[in-house]
Amino acid sequence: VSAGATAAVVIVGSEVLSAKVQDENGPFLARRLHELGVELAAIHVVPDRTDAIVEAMLLERRRVDWLFTAGGVGPTHDDLTLPAVARALGVPVRRNPDLVRILEVMHARHHGGDSLPDVALRMADLPEGTELLGDPEFPTLVVSRVVMLPGVPSFLRHQFERVAHLFGGTPFHLVTLFFAWGEDQLAIPLARVAEIHPAVEIGSYPRFDRADHRVRVTIEGKDAALVQAGARAILEAVPAVALVRAEGIGP
Amino acid sequence: VSAGATAAVVIVGSEVLSAKVQDENGPFLARRLHELGVELAAIHVVPDRTDAIVEAMLLERRRVDWLFTAGGVGPTHDDLTLPAVARALGVPVRRNPDLVRILEVMHARHHGGDSLPDVALRMADLPEGTELLGDPEFPTLVVSRVVMLPGVPSFLRHQFERVAHLFGGTPFHLVTLFFAWGEDQLAIPLARVAEIHPAVEIGSYPRFDRADHRVRVTIEGKDAALVQAGARAILEAVPAVALVRAEGIGP
Repeated sequence: VSAGATAAVVIVGSEVLSAKVQDENGPFLARRLHELGVELAAIHVVPDRTDAIVEAMLLERRRVDWLFTAGGVGPTHDDLTLPAVARALGVPVRRNPDLVRILEVMHARHHGGDSLPDVALRMADLPEGTELLGDPEFPTLVVSRVVMLPGVPSFLRHQFERVAHLFGGTPFHLVTLFFAWGEDQLAIPLARVAEIHPAVEIGSYPRFDRADHRVRVTIEGKDAALVQAGARAILEAVPAVALVRAEGIGP
Repeated sequence: VSAGATAAVVIVGSEVLSAKVQDENGPFLARRLHELGVELAAIHVVPDRTDAIVEAMLLERRRVDWLFTAGGVGPTHDDLTLPAVARALGVPVRRNPDLVRILEVMHARHHGGDSLPDVALRMADLPEGTELLGDPEFPTLVVSRVVMLPGVPSFLRHQFERVAHLFGGTPFHLVTLFFAWGEDQLAIPLARVAEIHPAVEIGSYPRFDRADHRVRVTIEGKDAALVQAGARAILEAVPAVALVRAEGIGP
């Protein structure tokens, strides 16, 4: 994976859209991918419907390196992610004997001698070519750079962390500047610096509460020297009286 | 607006994708739209880029009644929502004199005699046909059923609530069943009931913590009688010993 790895996330979540559950998986993946230096291009929350999952996947697959799905991998009628991924990739679904064995062991551990119900085997019907990576007892399902994660947040985090080394790139560098001025006073210098420094991302976030600053400006990018140069250019363009404090400024 | 009003949300949020900010606006809009009886079809979190905003809008506009954007309506270089909406709708951008006056009043209130900086006028460059609705001092911008909300959560909530009556439909009815059984034991009865009761949405949410139940099943729809019938069908298909409790069951 290059320094510029990119990703998109598809949350399969009718329960998020109908506000029965507040999504934790999108924010977790955003944070961890950013820490790993992976640029997240989009998060799509879609209903538990095959067509909606396939559409979001086809939209993102052409432009990102890694696609993460979250949810829809259980045994019930509303678990549709595995066949949807197969359809989006144009491959058939095949029952994976290794995963059947893992599910049998898991089931025996929780239910003693009972044999695994047939319907639970749906969880082992995977897009052809799916690899079982990470934890051998609770593997992460990966096919053609599509990572199919479970929806339960603690399970998702476990399966993500066990394969996180696959996604790593060059980390981002960040400088944060806190200003006492409002956005309308900063807009022109920021726009000018953004134009001269296209390799860094300059964000501007106003606050309207009783914080010590009115605008937080972030300068971020993969090249530390360019980030520092962008931050310095902003500090040169704005009078010192406007600056409350700075974080991440180099020597 | 019919009983079956639908919506989609586009969060314009590079800061959400890079985990600098945790999005509150998607969950708020999901909750309020659901309370109002509006079916939310998707939430897209996209970067602060014109092409990304336009693409998400074009994807959703063909299938939903209302499209909400959140963020990107300020005065800085990364505020691109208003021209992106104009482009997606195929209309020009025009400076709105009523909004210019409102911005001038707001500015005078905060900065005394200072005149409004030119760059702040970008906030009044609206897609042609945009109406200023709701609070006359802090209006909600609506054009062709696209509602352009600000990204600051307290402002977004204010502007949403002042026009919320526009979106109302028939409310949803919900029954929730809590089961001591696992999903693999419930999967077959749930699938059978889901097939016989296509007008209700049946969701299944496993838990793996120390809660008193292992699976929460939701039955939801616009027609209360159909929701009750769907819930009763599940209770008939599952032995009573599996049920922990029920919420929303009618007489």
